[in-house]
Amino acid sequence: MISDAHRLAAGALDMPNRLLLGAGPSNPNPRVMQALMGRTVGHLDPTFLRVMDDIREMLRYAWQTENEHTLLISGTGTAGMEAAVANAVEPGDVVVVAVAGYFGDRIAQMAARYGADVKRLEVAWGEAFPHETLAAAVETHRPAVLAVVHAETSTGVLQPLDGLGALCHANDCLLLVDSVTSFGGVPLLLDASGVDVAYSGSQKCMAAPSGVAPLTFSPRAMDKLARRKVPVRSWYLDYTLLSKYWGADRAYHHTAPINMVYAMRESLRIVCEEGLEARWARHRAAAEHLWEGLSDMGLECHVAPEFRVPSLTTVRVPEGVDARGVVRQLLDDHDIEISGGLGQLAGKVWRVGLMGYNARSETADRLLKALAKVLGR
Amino acid sequence: MISDAHRLAAGALDMPNRLLLGAGPSNPNPRVMQALMGRTVGHLDPTFLRVMDDIREMLRYAWQTENEHTLLISGTGTAGMEAAVANAVEPGDVVVVAVAGYFGDRIAQMAARYGADVKRLEVAWGEAFPHETLAAAVETHRPAVLAVVHAETSTGVLQPLDGLGALCHANDCLLLVDSVTSFGGVPLLLDASGVDVAYSGSQKCMAAPSGVAPLTFSPRAMDKLARRKVPVRSWYLDYTLLSKYWGADRAYHHTAPINMVYAMRESLRIVCEEGLEARWARHRAAAEHLWEGLSDMGLECHVAPEFRVPSLTTVRVPEGVDARGVVRQLLDDHDIEISGGLGQLAGKVWRVGLMGYNARSETADRLLKALAKVLGR
Repeated sequence: MISDAHRLAAGALDMPNRLLLGAGPSNPNPRVMQALMGRTVGHLDPTFLRVMDDIREMLRYAWQTENEHTLLISGTGTAGMEAAVANAVEPGDVVVVAVAGYFGDRIAQMAARYGADVKRLEVAWGEAFPHETLAAAVETHRPAVLAVVHAETSTGVLQPLDGLGALCHANDCLLLVDSVTSFGGVPLLLDASGVDVAYSGSQKCMAAPSGVAPLTFSPRAMDKLARRKVPVRSWYLDYTLLSKYWGADRAYHHTAPINMVYAMRESLRIVCEEGLEARWARHRAAAEHLWEGLSDMGLECHVAPEFRVPSLTTVRVPEGVDARGVVRQLLDDHDIEISGGLGQLAGKVWRVGLMGYNARSETADRLLKALAKVLGR
Repeated sequence: MISDAHRLAAGALDMPNRLLLGAGPSNPNPRVMQALMGRTVGHLDPTFLRVMDDIREMLRYAWQTENEHTLLISGTGTAGMEAAVANAVEPGDVVVVAVAGYFGDRIAQMAARYGADVKRLEVAWGEAFPHETLAAAVETHRPAVLAVVHAETSTGVLQPLDGLGALCHANDCLLLVDSVTSFGGVPLLLDASGVDVAYSGSQKCMAAPSGVAPLTFSPRAMDKLARRKVPVRSWYLDYTLLSKYWGADRAYHHTAPINMVYAMRESLRIVCEEGLEARWARHRAAAEHLWEGLSDMGLECHVAPEFRVPSLTTVRVPEGVDARGVVRQLLDDHDIEISGGLGQLAGKVWRVGLMGYNARSETADRLLKALAKVLGR
């Protein structure tokens, strides 16, 4: 009756020792891995509820926000993005999406699936939007939401947020910001920038394994949520239901990924210990060290210095070089992962992440040395 | 400029040593926790792609299915439920949901959010649906999907699946089965039962931490998916996109929760080593040991013996006993978690899980001894 056709006799897990310098995941901080192993308790255990409270509080520090409504989504950064969109957008809403790369495009796709009337703005992949372009779009389309990607992981471009909060608030519009690759590594002050909705992931500058996604809503965003006419299409990501678990009610919604939550608590503890300024400076210093080394090797960054994301650098593939071959050789011969280009930039750039635990000049040096060997420079 | 208002000086994580005998999570198998600590690699690393393939193959064994389309959702069991519903249901579809408890109701809610014309069937919480009731509903409503919960976690009732596959297939309807609490612990043969869509979680009979959700689609389910007129509302849970990552294309969709996937591989390896029959028998034996012990103590099970879920037992709260007080005392004085009743059964039953690593008579004995003390019996 029982078939053994698929009864695999698999060996014990035995993963290689990679240095993860791609677009994410980055190598988890060993302290975070230790916390991941914490004894599992129930999702309504009083000790776990305290862990959740610690996380909410430390997320506020890391994001520099007073938002009461701050929590973790039980999924990866993409689930965070979908939670942000699903809750902030109602069918029929006009949503302006600043598409400067792959992840801006993803937001536009999600917003369309959730019934938005999407107005896409585009710039070349490798550039940021000038403020005037965004201002003109908001004033023309009068959107319910303006969505921008702070650090576009596909291009390595940092979108300046200056003035966007004021612009949105003057036009009764929510400012939604993707901070997947900037959170915990790149200066970002949510409240000072007037951001209403933001999300991130755990596996980039936070140096935790992937699997949970920070999410936050400003009081203005909560007002819009309270005025919704139709429920959020996704039950799993419905913030109103989630907030009853993370908030005072402690009502069961789903079984939180307990051990992943432990890991994220430790990541945030490390951010609090190190301090945001020191952490941002560390990411910046490591990136500058990398940029210098690349330049010494005759390699070019794809993005102008003033718009570069410190945690994610796009490097132009020199003429005649097999982009994928280099990625493969770095992995096979040097145990170093970097990422290829995505979408429009496939084959044209490599993406190098110096994130979280890996944001150190020694790490950059390891890559530079290996890259010199592979490229014969 | 940087505010330290929320810069928490939290202590290192220090969780208590709970015996988790509630409705889930259960205590992870120590081998699974070791695998969880595996070295993180990238989500497109060739070594990780092999881990994914191992998992797909072992899921087929554990579910006894030949389904090509079998993978893990990057979320908890509730995300698995939502993925099943979001993909199988198109707006306007008639969906018959057999609501025998809290989780059947959750499916009905999700299906409604995804635009289904939901026909709810109801039985008292603690009973299973007779085949005739389900047959009459399918023949009357001619639904696109019949959804049943195999092991209803809120009531401890096992819904027999006999004849449902044939019934659905004769009526051009998909059979969708929630196997969150049965998968890996209770006899379930997907193909033999004609199940088209099934999902589960990781933190119950699989004895892994929560955070990933097995999901499978039969060829019939895939035909319906291929005929969809509107895309799946959820981008994160869109199977067509997910299958391009888990299938031959290996196209990036989201960053898989790498370490949680390691954990699930080890859980499935343990299932393959132990063998399904032995595993089911172990869960059954532990449950019978518990039921006997409860009866010896003068406590009554809520469900008739022939419909009891071995992995989740509902115990009636004796007249005059403070249900929540007992739960609290077991936790505080004995470090044992059991769950209270949900919904209609709140305050009326306790829910005791003997799942995965905990499905042993010694574990049942620890609870019985503590319960006797707390109840003064």
